[in-house]
Amino acid sequence: LSIAFINGEFVDVNQRVLPIDERGHQFGDGVYEVVKVYHSTPFLLNEHLQRLQNSAENIQIKLPYSLQEIEAIILQGIEKSGLADAEVYFQITRGIAPRNHLFPDVPPSFTMTIKPSRVVPQKSYEEGVSTILVEDDRWAKCYIKSLNLLPNILAKQLAASNGHFEAIMVKDGYVTEGTSSNVFAVKAGCLYTTPLTSNILPGITRAAILKLAEKKGIPFVEENFTSTFLLEADEVFMTSTSVEVLPVRLVDGNLIGTGNPGEVTKTIHEALKELYRVKV
Amino acid sequence: LSIAFINGEFVDVNQRVLPIDERGHQFGDGVYEVVKVYHSTPFLLNEHLQRLQNSAENIQIKLPYSLQEIEAIILQGIEKSGLADAEVYFQITRGIAPRNHLFPDVPPSFTMTIKPSRVVPQKSYEEGVSTILVEDDRWAKCYIKSLNLLPNILAKQLAASNGHFEAIMVKDGYVTEGTSSNVFAVKAGCLYTTPLTSNILPGITRAAILKLAEKKGIPFVEENFTSTFLLEADEVFMTSTSVEVLPVRLVDGNLIGTGNPGEVTKTIHEALKELYRVKV
Repeated sequence: LSIAFINGEFVDVNQRVLPIDERGHQFGDGVYEVVKVYHSTPFLLNEHLQRLQNSAENIQIKLPYSLQEIEAIILQGIEKSGLADAEVYFQITRGIAPRNHLFPDVPPSFTMTIKPSRVVPQKSYEEGVSTILVEDDRWAKCYIKSLNLLPNILAKQLAASNGHFEAIMVKDGYVTEGTSSNVFAVKAGCLYTTPLTSNILPGITRAAILKLAEKKGIPFVEENFTSTFLLEADEVFMTSTSVEVLPVRLVDGNLIGTGNPGEVTKTIHEALKELYRVKV
Repeated sequence: LSIAFINGEFVDVNQRVLPIDERGHQFGDGVYEVVKVYHSTPFLLNEHLQRLQNSAENIQIKLPYSLQEIEAIILQGIEKSGLADAEVYFQITRGIAPRNHLFPDVPPSFTMTIKPSRVVPQKSYEEGVSTILVEDDRWAKCYIKSLNLLPNILAKQLAASNGHFEAIMVKDGYVTEGTSSNVFAVKAGCLYTTPLTSNILPGITRAAILKLAEKKGIPFVEENFTSTFLLEADEVFMTSTSVEVLPVRLVDGNLIGTGNPGEVTKTIHEALKELYRVKV
Protein backbone atom coordinates (compact mmCIF):
# COMPACT_ATOMS: atom_id res chain seq x y z
CA LEU A 1 0.00 0.00 0.00
CA SER A 2 1.40 3.41 -0.96
CA ILE A 3 1.35 5.86 1.88
CA ALA A 4 2.16 9.52 2.50
CA PHE A 5 3.09 11.71 5.44
CA ILE A 6 3.01 15.42 6.09
CA ASN A 7 4.10 17.29 9.21
CA GLY A 8 3.20 14.66 11.79
CA GLU A 9 0.35 12.91 10.03
CA PHE A 10 0.06 9.87 7.79
CA VAL A 11 -2.28 10.55 4.88
CA ASP A 12 -3.40 9.03 1.62
CA VAL A 13 -0.91 9.64 -1.21
CA ASN A 14 -3.58 11.43 -3.23
CA GLN A 15 -4.84 13.60 -0.41
CA ARG A 16 -4.72 17.33 -1.06
CA VAL A 17 -2.48 18.54 1.73
CA LEU A 18 -0.76 21.64 0.33
CA PRO A 19 -2.05 25.12 -0.43
CA ILE A 20 -0.95 27.06 -3.52
CA ASP A 21 1.28 29.32 -1.41
CA GLU A 22 3.85 26.67 -0.57
CA ARG A 23 7.60 27.18 -1.03
CA GLY A 24 8.13 23.94 -2.90
CA HIS A 25 5.23 24.57 -5.24
CA GLN A 26 6.18 28.16 -6.06
CA PHE A 27 9.98 28.25 -5.84
CA GLY A 28 11.26 24.67 -5.69
CA ASP A 29 12.55 25.92 -2.35
CA GLY A 30 13.51 22.69 -0.66
CA VAL A 31 15.65 19.56 -0.62
CA TYR A 32 14.88 15.87 -0.86
CA GLU A 33 16.09 12.28 -0.67
CA VAL A 34 15.06 8.95 -2.14
CA VAL A 35 15.80 5.82 -0.12
CA LYS A 36 15.33 2.28 -1.34
CA VAL A 37 13.84 -0.33 0.96
CA TYR A 38 14.91 -3.96 0.55
CA HIS A 39 13.31 -6.64 2.68
CA SER A 40 11.59 -3.96 4.77
CA THR A 41 14.93 -2.30 5.59
CA PRO A 42 15.91 1.14 4.28
CA PHE A 43 19.29 0.86 2.56
CA LEU A 44 22.09 3.25 3.53
CA LEU A 45 19.59 5.36 5.46
CA ASN A 46 22.14 7.15 7.64
CA GLU A 47 24.03 8.32 4.58
CA HIS A 48 20.82 9.69 3.04
CA LEU A 49 19.83 11.42 6.27
CA GLN A 50 23.25 13.00 6.59
CA ARG A 51 23.06 14.29 3.03
CA LEU A 52 19.57 15.67 3.65
CA GLN A 53 20.96 17.60 6.59
CA ASN A 54 23.84 18.92 4.47
CA SER A 55 21.49 19.96 1.65
CA ALA A 56 19.15 21.71 4.09
CA GLU A 57 22.05 23.56 5.74
CA ASN A 58 23.35 24.66 2.36
CA ILE A 59 20.09 26.45 1.61
CA GLN A 60 19.59 27.51 5.23
CA ILE A 61 16.57 25.41 6.07
CA LYS A 62 16.47 24.15 9.63
CA LEU A 63 15.21 20.56 9.70
CA PRO A 64 11.84 20.38 11.44
CA TYR A 65 12.86 17.04 12.99
CA SER A 66 16.09 15.52 14.20
CA LEU A 67 17.60 12.85 11.95
CA GLN A 68 16.59 10.29 14.58
CA GLU A 69 12.99 11.49 14.38
CA ILE A 70 13.03 11.33 10.59
CA GLU A 71 14.40 7.80 10.79
CA ALA A 72 11.58 6.85 13.16
CA ILE A 73 8.98 8.36 10.80
CA ILE A 74 10.44 6.43 7.87
CA LEU A 75 10.50 3.14 9.77
CA GLN A 76 6.94 3.69 10.97
CA GLY A 77 5.88 4.50 7.40
CA ILE A 78 7.49 1.38 5.99
CA GLU A 79 5.69 -0.71 8.57
CA LYS A 80 2.37 0.99 7.87
CA SER A 81 2.81 0.52 4.13
CA GLY A 82 3.39 -3.19 4.55
CA LEU A 83 5.82 -2.97 1.63
CA ALA A 84 8.95 -5.12 1.74
CA ASP A 85 10.52 -3.49 -1.32
CA ALA A 86 9.78 0.18 -1.59
CA GLU A 87 11.00 3.64 -2.45
CA VAL A 88 10.82 6.24 0.29
CA TYR A 89 10.72 9.78 -1.06
CA PHE A 90 10.96 12.63 1.41
CA GLN A 91 11.42 16.34 1.03
CA ILE A 92 11.72 19.40 3.21
CA THR A 93 10.53 22.76 1.95
CA ARG A 94 10.77 26.16 3.58
CA GLY A 95 7.11 25.81 4.41
CA ILE A 96 3.72 27.33 3.80
CA ALA A 97 3.70 31.12 3.55
CA PRO A 98 2.35 33.93 1.37
CA ARG A 99 4.52 34.12 -1.75
CA ASN A 100 7.62 36.27 -1.26
CA HIS A 101 11.23 35.55 -2.21
CA LEU A 102 12.45 36.26 1.32
CA PHE A 103 12.58 33.45 3.88
CA PRO A 104 9.27 33.32 5.75
CA ASP A 105 9.07 32.96 9.52
CA VAL A 106 7.16 29.66 9.39
CA PRO A 107 8.13 26.07 10.16
CA PRO A 108 9.57 24.06 7.25
CA SER A 109 7.38 21.27 5.86
CA PHE A 110 8.33 17.61 5.85
CA THR A 111 6.51 15.43 3.34
CA MET A 112 7.09 11.79 2.46
CA THR A 113 5.69 9.11 0.19
CA ILE A 114 6.38 5.39 0.36
CA LYS A 115 5.55 3.37 -2.75
CA PRO A 116 6.46 0.07 -4.35
CA SER A 117 9.90 0.30 -5.96
CA ARG A 118 9.93 1.17 -9.62
CA VAL A 119 11.53 -1.73 -11.41
CA VAL A 120 14.22 -1.40 -14.07
CA PRO A 121 13.68 -4.26 -16.55
CA GLN A 122 16.11 -7.17 -16.06
CA LYS A 123 16.93 -6.84 -19.75
CA SER A 124 18.49 -3.42 -19.11
CA TYR A 125 20.96 -5.00 -16.67
CA GLU A 126 21.73 -7.83 -19.06
CA GLU A 127 22.18 -5.74 -22.18
CA GLY A 128 23.00 -2.28 -20.92
CA VAL A 129 21.08 0.89 -21.73
CA SER A 130 21.39 3.61 -24.32
CA THR A 131 22.36 7.15 -23.29
CA ILE A 132 22.96 10.51 -24.89
CA LEU A 133 25.35 13.34 -24.09
CA VAL A 134 23.82 16.74 -23.35
CA GLU A 135 25.24 20.09 -22.34
CA ASP A 136 25.10 20.54 -18.56
CA ASP A 137 23.09 23.76 -18.23
CA ARG A 138 22.38 23.57 -14.51
CA TRP A 139 23.22 26.09 -11.81
CA ALA A 140 26.52 26.30 -9.97
CA LYS A 141 25.51 24.35 -6.85
CA CYS A 142 24.71 20.87 -8.06
CA TYR A 143 26.08 19.37 -4.83
CA ILE A 144 22.83 20.44 -3.18
CA LYS A 145 20.03 17.91 -3.67
CA SER A 146 17.42 20.60 -4.23
CA LEU A 147 13.97 20.62 -5.77
CA ASN A 148 15.13 22.85 -8.62
CA LEU A 149 15.12 19.94 -11.05
CA LEU A 150 13.85 21.47 -14.26
CA PRO A 151 17.14 21.09 -16.20
CA ASN A 152 17.34 17.44 -15.11
CA ILE A 153 13.77 16.77 -16.18
CA LEU A 154 14.21 18.40 -19.57
CA ALA A 155 17.42 16.46 -20.30
CA LYS A 156 15.96 13.15 -19.11
CA GLN A 157 12.83 13.68 -21.21
CA LEU A 158 14.93 14.56 -24.26
CA ALA A 159 16.74 11.24 -23.83
CA ALA A 160 13.52 9.26 -23.31
CA SER A 161 11.73 10.90 -26.24
CA ASN A 162 14.52 9.61 -28.48
CA GLY A 163 14.45 6.11 -27.04
CA HIS A 164 17.32 6.45 -24.55
CA PHE A 165 17.37 5.68 -20.86
CA GLU A 166 19.43 8.56 -19.54
CA ALA A 167 21.17 11.78 -20.51
CA ILE A 168 24.79 12.20 -19.42
CA MET A 169 25.69 15.82 -18.85
CA VAL A 170 28.88 17.43 -20.10
CA LYS A 171 30.26 20.73 -18.81
CA ASP A 172 33.16 22.43 -20.60
CA GLY A 173 33.93 19.13 -22.32
CA TYR A 174 34.00 17.08 -19.11
CA VAL A 175 31.42 14.55 -17.99
CA THR A 176 29.63 15.65 -14.83
CA GLU A 177 26.83 13.16 -14.13
CA GLY A 178 23.52 11.77 -15.37
CA THR A 179 20.25 13.61 -14.78
CA SER A 180 19.50 11.29 -11.86
CA SER A 181 22.66 9.20 -11.62
CA ASN A 182 26.43 9.33 -11.28
CA VAL A 183 28.60 8.04 -14.11
CA PHE A 184 31.54 5.63 -13.98
CA ALA A 185 33.94 4.57 -16.72
CA VAL A 186 36.33 1.62 -16.70
CA LYS A 187 39.56 1.84 -18.70
CA ALA A 188 42.30 -0.81 -18.55
CA GLY A 189 40.83 -2.20 -15.33
CA CYS A 190 40.73 1.16 -13.55
CA LEU A 191 37.51 2.81 -12.41
CA TYR A 192 37.04 6.51 -13.19
CA THR A 193 34.40 8.80 -11.80
CA THR A 194 33.93 12.57 -11.62
CA PRO A 195 35.34 14.04 -8.38
CA LEU A 196 33.10 15.66 -5.80
CA THR A 197 32.94 19.36 -6.58
CA SER A 198 30.01 21.75 -6.75
CA ASN A 199 29.37 20.30 -10.24
CA ILE A 200 27.86 17.01 -9.11
CA LEU A 201 25.71 15.48 -6.43
CA PRO A 202 27.62 13.34 -3.94
CA GLY A 203 25.77 10.14 -4.77
CA ILE A 204 25.18 7.71 -1.92
CA THR A 205 25.51 4.74 -4.29
CA ARG A 206 28.60 6.39 -5.82
CA ALA A 207 30.26 6.54 -2.40
CA ALA A 208 29.26 2.96 -1.56
CA ILE A 209 30.80 1.77 -4.82
CA LEU A 210 34.10 3.51 -4.23
CA LYS A 211 34.28 1.77 -0.85
CA LEU A 212 33.48 -1.55 -2.50
CA ALA A 213 36.10 -0.98 -5.19
CA GLU A 214 38.67 -0.39 -2.48
CA LYS A 215 37.58 -3.54 -0.67
CA LYS A 216 37.67 -5.60 -3.86
CA GLY A 217 41.06 -4.25 -4.90
CA ILE A 218 39.70 -2.53 -8.01
CA PRO A 219 41.85 0.56 -8.65
CA PHE A 220 39.89 3.80 -8.96
CA VAL A 221 40.44 7.50 -9.45
CA GLU A 222 38.11 10.44 -8.88
CA GLU A 223 39.13 12.60 -11.78
CA ASN A 224 37.43 14.67 -14.44
CA PHE A 225 37.27 12.95 -17.81
CA THR A 226 36.10 14.11 -21.22
CA SER A 227 33.18 12.79 -23.23
CA THR A 228 35.77 11.35 -25.67
CA PHE A 229 37.33 9.38 -22.82
CA LEU A 230 33.86 8.09 -21.96
CA LEU A 231 33.21 6.96 -25.54
CA GLU A 232 36.53 5.12 -25.60
CA ALA A 233 36.08 3.42 -22.22
CA ASP A 234 35.99 -0.37 -21.90
CA GLU A 235 32.92 -0.19 -19.68
CA VAL A 236 30.53 2.55 -18.60
CA PHE A 237 27.88 2.32 -15.94
CA MET A 238 25.62 4.67 -14.05
CA THR A 239 24.72 4.47 -10.39
CA SER A 240 21.81 5.72 -8.30
CA THR A 241 19.60 4.63 -5.46
CA SER A 242 16.93 3.59 -7.94
CA VAL A 243 18.98 1.82 -10.62
CA GLU A 244 21.83 0.64 -8.35
CA VAL A 245 24.51 -0.18 -10.97
CA LEU A 246 23.25 -0.04 -14.53
CA PRO A 247 25.51 -0.90 -17.49
CA VAL A 248 25.63 1.57 -20.38
CA ARG A 249 25.70 -0.03 -23.81
CA LEU A 250 25.54 3.08 -25.97
CA VAL A 251 26.59 6.69 -25.61
CA ASP A 252 25.34 8.88 -28.43
CA GLY A 253 25.02 5.75 -30.54
CA ASN A 254 28.61 4.62 -29.90
CA LEU A 255 29.00 1.10 -28.58
CA ILE A 256 30.95 1.01 -25.30
CA GLY A 257 33.56 -1.78 -25.26
CA THR A 258 32.01 -4.97 -26.60
CA GLY A 259 28.57 -3.54 -25.94
CA ASN A 260 27.90 -6.13 -23.26
CA PRO A 261 28.09 -5.35 -19.55
CA GLY A 262 31.73 -5.63 -18.47
CA GLU A 263 33.30 -7.64 -15.68
CA VAL A 264 34.02 -4.68 -13.43
CA THR A 265 30.43 -3.46 -13.78
CA LYS A 266 29.07 -6.90 -12.88
CA THR A 267 31.48 -7.36 -9.97
CA ILE A 268 30.59 -3.96 -8.54
CA HIS A 269 26.86 -4.55 -8.87
CA GLU A 270 27.10 -7.95 -7.19
CA ALA A 271 29.12 -6.44 -4.36
CA LEU A 272 26.47 -3.73 -3.87
CA LYS A 273 23.71 -6.32 -3.79
CA GLU A 274 25.63 -8.18 -1.09
CA LEU A 275 25.37 -5.10 1.10
CA TYR A 276 21.62 -5.19 1.29
CA ARG A 277 21.37 -8.95 1.12
CA VAL A 278 23.45 -9.42 4.26
CA LYS A 279 21.31 -6.88 6.06
CA VAL A 280 18.34 -9.25 6.18
CA LEU B 1 -10.29 39.85 -0.12
CA SER B 2 -7.50 37.55 -1.24
CA ILE B 3 -8.69 34.78 -3.50
CA ALA B 4 -7.27 31.68 -5.18
CA PHE B 5 -8.09 29.52 -8.17
CA ILE B 6 -7.15 26.04 -9.23
CA ASN B 7 -8.16 24.20 -12.39
CA GLY B 8 -11.60 25.70 -12.85
CA GLU B 9 -12.55 26.49 -9.30
CA PHE B 10 -12.22 29.54 -7.05
CA VAL B 11 -11.02 28.55 -3.58
CA ASP B 12 -9.79 30.10 -0.37
CA VAL B 13 -6.09 31.09 -0.55
CA ASN B 14 -5.31 28.81 2.38
CA GLN B 15 -7.24 25.82 1.11
CA ARG B 16 -5.23 22.63 0.71
CA VAL B 17 -5.63 21.91 -2.97
CA LEU B 18 -2.43 20.06 -3.95
CA PRO B 19 -1.19 16.56 -3.17
CA ILE B 20 2.49 15.85 -2.38
CA ASP B 21 2.99 14.30 -5.83
CA GLU B 22 2.70 17.52 -7.77
CA ARG B 23 5.26 18.62 -10.36
CA GLY B 24 5.65 22.12 -8.96
CA HIS B 25 6.10 20.86 -5.42
CA GLN B 26 8.63 18.17 -6.29
CA PHE B 27 10.54 19.54 -9.30
CA GLY B 28 9.71 23.22 -9.66
CA ASP B 29 8.39 21.97 -13.00
CA GLY B 30 6.38 24.95 -14.15
CA VAL B 31 6.25 28.58 -15.17
CA TYR B 32 4.58 31.65 -13.73
CA GLU B 33 3.66 35.30 -14.07
CA VAL B 34 2.89 38.18 -11.73
CA VAL B 35 0.55 40.89 -12.96
CA LYS B 36 -0.19 44.13 -11.16
CA VAL B 37 -3.73 45.44 -11.02
CA TYR B 38 -4.28 49.20 -10.85
CA HIS B 39 -7.79 50.58 -10.50
CA SER B 40 -9.23 47.09 -11.07
CA THR B 41 -7.39 46.77 -14.40
CA PRO B 42 -4.53 44.30 -14.93
CA PHE B 43 -1.53 46.23 -16.31
CA LEU B 44 0.18 45.01 -19.49
CA LEU B 45 -1.77 41.76 -19.27
CA ASN B 46 -1.33 40.75 -22.90
CA GLU B 47 2.44 41.02 -22.57
CA HIS B 48 2.40 38.81 -19.48
CA LEU B 49 0.15 36.24 -21.12
CA GLN B 50 2.37 36.12 -24.19
CA ARG B 51 5.44 35.57 -22.01
CA LEU B 52 3.63 32.82 -20.08
CA GLN B 53 2.96 31.08 -23.36
CA ASN B 54 6.61 31.42 -24.41
CA SER B 55 7.86 30.09 -21.06
CA ALA B 56 5.48 27.14 -21.20
CA GLU B 57 6.52 26.32 -24.77
CA ASN B 58 10.17 26.47 -23.79
CA ILE B 59 9.69 23.71 -21.23
CA GLN B 60 7.14 21.87 -23.38
CA ILE B 61 4.06 22.42 -21.25
CA LYS B 62 0.86 22.83 -23.20
CA LEU B 63 -1.28 25.54 -21.63
CA PRO B 64 -4.48 24.05 -20.20
CA TYR B 65 -6.39 27.16 -21.28
CA SER B 66 -6.16 29.56 -24.18
CA LEU B 67 -4.73 32.99 -23.37
CA GLN B 68 -8.23 34.38 -23.80
CA GLU B 69 -9.55 31.93 -21.22
CA ILE B 70 -6.76 32.82 -18.79
CA GLU B 71 -7.56 36.48 -19.28
CA ALA B 72 -11.21 35.77 -18.49
CA ILE B 73 -10.26 33.84 -15.33
CA ILE B 74 -8.05 36.71 -14.19
CA LEU B 75 -10.73 39.32 -14.81
CA GLN B 76 -13.31 37.19 -13.04
CA GLY B 77 -10.90 36.73 -10.12
CA ILE B 78 -10.22 40.44 -9.82
CA GLU B 79 -13.93 41.12 -9.73
CA LYS B 80 -14.53 38.40 -7.13
CA SER B 81 -11.69 39.72 -4.98
CA GLY B 82 -13.16 43.20 -4.97
CA LEU B 83 -9.58 44.52 -4.96
CA ALA B 84 -8.83 47.66 -6.94
CA ASP B 85 -5.06 47.41 -6.47
CA ALA B 86 -3.82 43.87 -6.47
CA GLU B 87 -1.16 41.40 -7.49
CA VAL B 88 -2.27 38.48 -9.60
CA TYR B 89 0.08 35.51 -9.34
CA PHE B 90 -0.51 32.57 -11.65
CA GLN B 91 1.49 29.50 -12.46
CA ILE B 92 1.23 26.45 -14.67
CA THR B 93 2.86 23.20 -13.62
CA ARG B 94 3.12 19.94 -15.49
CA GLY B 95 0.40 18.63 -13.21
CA ILE B 96 -0.37 16.04 -10.59
CA ALA B 97 1.30 12.67 -11.15
CA PRO B 98 3.32 10.03 -9.28
CA ARG B 99 6.89 11.33 -8.95
CA ASN B 100 9.03 10.54 -11.99
CA HIS B 101 11.39 12.78 -13.94
CA LEU B 102 9.69 11.94 -17.23
CA PHE B 103 6.74 14.02 -18.42
CA PRO B 104 3.51 12.47 -17.13
CA ASP B 105 0.45 12.00 -19.30
CA VAL B 106 -1.78 14.24 -17.19
CA PRO B 107 -3.26 17.70 -17.69
CA PRO B 108 -1.10 20.64 -16.54
CA SER B 109 -2.35 22.54 -13.48
CA PHE B 110 -3.26 26.21 -13.47
CA THR B 111 -3.23 27.94 -10.09
CA MET B 112 -3.69 31.60 -9.26
CA THR B 113 -3.81 33.89 -6.26
CA ILE B 114 -5.04 37.47 -6.18
CA LYS B 115 -3.96 39.56 -3.20
CA PRO B 116 -3.59 43.20 -2.21
CA SER B 117 -0.44 44.65 -3.79
CA ARG B 118 2.65 44.57 -1.64
CA VAL B 119 3.70 48.15 -1.13
CA VAL B 120 7.26 49.42 -1.51
CA PRO B 121 7.67 52.26 1.02
CA GLN B 122 7.49 55.72 -0.53
CA LYS B 123 10.81 56.45 1.15
CA SER B 124 12.51 53.88 -1.09
CA TYR B 125 11.40 55.82 -4.16
CA GLU B 126 12.47 59.12 -2.68
CA GLU B 127 15.87 58.03 -1.43
CA GLY B 128 16.73 54.98 -3.52
CA VAL B 129 17.56 51.55 -2.16
CA SER B 130 20.72 49.70 -1.28
CA THR B 131 21.87 46.71 -3.34
CA ILE B 132 24.74 44.24 -3.41
CA LEU B 133 26.51 42.49 -6.26
CA VAL B 134 26.49 38.69 -6.24
CA GLU B 135 27.82 36.06 -8.58
CA ASP B 136 25.10 34.88 -10.97
CA ASP B 137 25.05 31.13 -10.31
CA ARG B 138 21.81 30.30 -12.11
CA TRP B 139 21.24 27.85 -14.94
CA ALA B 140 21.72 28.62 -18.61
CA LYS B 141 18.09 29.36 -19.49
CA CYS B 142 17.18 32.41 -17.44
CA TYR B 143 14.93 33.67 -20.24
CA ILE B 144 12.37 31.12 -19.08
CA LYS B 145 10.23 32.38 -16.19
CA SER B 146 10.31 29.04 -14.40
CA LEU B 147 9.60 27.96 -10.84
CA ASN B 148 13.26 26.96 -10.32
CA LEU B 149 13.90 30.04 -8.21
CA LEU B 150 16.23 28.78 -5.50
CA PRO B 151 19.28 30.78 -6.65
CA ASN B 152 17.15 33.93 -6.80
CA ILE B 153 15.76 33.33 -3.32
CA LEU B 154 19.17 32.70 -1.79
CA ALA B 155 20.67 35.83 -3.35
CA LYS B 156 17.69 38.00 -2.38
CA GLN B 157 17.79 36.69 1.18
CA LEU B 158 21.53 37.32 1.39
CA ALA B 159 20.87 40.93 0.41
CA ALA B 160 17.99 41.34 2.85
CA SER B 161 19.85 39.71 5.74
CA ASN B 162 22.50 42.40 5.34
CA GLY B 163 20.02 45.23 5.14
CA HIS B 164 19.83 45.60 1.37
CA PHE B 165 16.79 45.61 -0.89
CA GLU B 166 18.05 43.58 -3.83
CA ALA B 167 20.99 41.55 -5.12
CA ILE B 168 22.27 42.41 -8.60
CA MET B 169 23.76 39.40 -10.32
CA VAL B 170 27.04 39.45 -12.21
CA LYS B 171 28.11 36.78 -14.69
CA ASP B 172 31.68 36.75 -16.03
CA GLY B 173 32.07 40.34 -14.89
CA TYR B 174 28.91 41.59 -16.58
CA VAL B 175 25.68 42.64 -14.90
CA THR B 176 22.80 40.36 -15.80
CA GLU B 177 19.79 41.35 -13.68
CA GLY B 178 18.41 41.50 -10.15
CA THR B 179 16.93 38.44 -8.44
CA SER B 180 13.45 39.68 -9.30
CA SER B 181 14.13 42.77 -11.39
CA ASN B 182 15.94 44.08 -14.44
CA VAL B 183 18.72 46.63 -14.01
CA PHE B 184 19.25 49.94 -15.83
CA ALA B 185 22.16 52.36 -15.66
CA VAL B 186 22.26 55.96 -16.88
CA LYS B 187 25.58 57.42 -18.06
CA ALA B 188 25.88 60.85 -19.67
CA GLY B 189 22.15 60.91 -20.36
CA CYS B 190 22.09 57.51 -22.09
CA LEU B 191 20.17 54.54 -20.73
CA TYR B 192 21.97 51.17 -20.60
CA THR B 193 20.40 47.81 -19.96
CA THR B 194 21.50 44.21 -20.46
CA PRO B 195 20.42 42.82 -23.85
CA LEU B 196 17.93 39.98 -24.14
CA THR B 197 19.90 36.75 -24.23
CA SER B 198 19.39 33.47 -22.39
CA ASN B 199 21.07 35.18 -19.40
CA ILE B 200 18.11 37.32 -18.38
CA LEU B 201 14.37 37.33 -18.20
CA PRO B 202 12.68 39.54 -20.79
CA GLY B 203 11.04 41.84 -18.26
CA ILE B 204 7.66 43.27 -19.17
CA THR B 205 8.43 46.49 -17.33
CA ARG B 206 11.88 46.53 -18.97
CA ALA B 207 10.27 46.41 -22.42
CA ALA B 208 7.70 49.06 -21.51
CA ILE B 209 10.49 51.36 -20.35
CA LEU B 210 12.50 51.01 -23.53
CA LYS B 211 9.40 52.00 -25.48
CA LEU B 212 8.88 54.98 -23.19
CA ALA B 213 12.54 56.01 -23.55
CA GLU B 214 12.12 55.99 -27.30
CA LYS B 215 8.95 58.05 -27.04
CA LYS B 216 10.55 60.53 -24.67
CA GLY B 217 13.67 60.85 -26.81
CA ILE B 218 15.96 59.38 -24.14
CA PRO B 219 18.80 57.57 -25.92
CA PHE B 220 19.25 53.94 -24.88
CA VAL B 221 21.39 50.92 -25.70
CA GLU B 222 20.86 47.26 -24.91
CA GLU B 223 24.42 46.27 -24.23
CA ASN B 224 26.33 44.24 -21.66
CA PHE B 225 28.07 46.38 -19.06
CA THR B 226 30.45 45.51 -16.25
CA SER B 227 29.86 45.92 -12.54
CA THR B 228 32.49 48.70 -12.63
CA PHE B 229 30.42 50.55 -15.22
CA LEU B 230 27.42 50.17 -12.94
CA LEU B 231 29.28 51.62 -9.95
CA GLU B 232 30.41 54.60 -12.03
CA ALA B 233 26.97 55.29 -13.53
CA ASP B 234 25.19 58.60 -12.93
CA GLU B 235 21.95 56.80 -12.10
CA VAL B 236 20.94 53.20 -11.53
CA PHE B 237 17.45 51.85 -11.22
CA MET B 238 15.75 48.48 -11.19
CA THR B 239 12.46 47.59 -12.80
CA SER B 240 9.83 44.94 -12.22
CA THR B 241 6.09 44.49 -12.16
CA SER B 242 6.11 44.84 -8.38
CA VAL B 243 8.51 47.75 -7.87
CA GLU B 244 7.88 49.53 -11.21
CA VAL B 245 10.96 51.81 -11.39
CA LEU B 246 12.97 51.86 -8.19
CA PRO B 247 16.06 54.09 -7.84
CA VAL B 248 19.25 52.47 -6.55
CA ARG B 249 21.22 54.60 -4.12
CA LEU B 250 23.97 52.14 -3.20
CA VAL B 251 25.69 49.24 -4.93
CA ASP B 252 28.00 47.32 -2.61
CA GLY B 253 28.18 50.42 -0.42
CA ASN B 254 29.16 52.72 -3.29
CA LEU B 255 27.00 55.79 -3.75
CA ILE B 256 25.56 56.02 -7.25
CA GLY B 257 25.84 59.54 -8.70
CA THR B 258 24.74 62.06 -6.08
CA GLY B 259 22.96 59.28 -4.22
CA ASN B 260 19.59 60.84 -4.94
CA PRO B 261 17.22 59.51 -7.59
CA GLY B 262 18.26 60.97 -10.93
CA GLU B 263 16.25 62.88 -13.47
CA VAL B 264 16.11 60.07 -16.04
CA THR B 265 14.93 57.62 -13.37
CA LYS B 266 12.18 59.99 -12.27
CA THR B 267 11.13 60.81 -15.82
CA ILE B 268 10.90 57.14 -16.73
CA HIS B 269 8.91 56.25 -13.63
CA GLU B 270 6.47 59.09 -14.21
CA ALA B 271 6.03 57.97 -17.82
CA LEU B 272 5.31 54.42 -16.68
CA LYS B 273 2.74 55.62 -14.18
CA GLU B 274 1.04 57.56 -16.97
CA LEU B 275 0.47 54.26 -18.76
CA TYR B 276 -1.74 52.83 -16.08
CA ARG B 277 -3.20 56.16 -15.06
CA VAL B 278 -4.61 56.82 -18.49
CA LYS B 279 -6.18 53.37 -18.53
CA VAL B 280 -8.72 54.37 -15.87
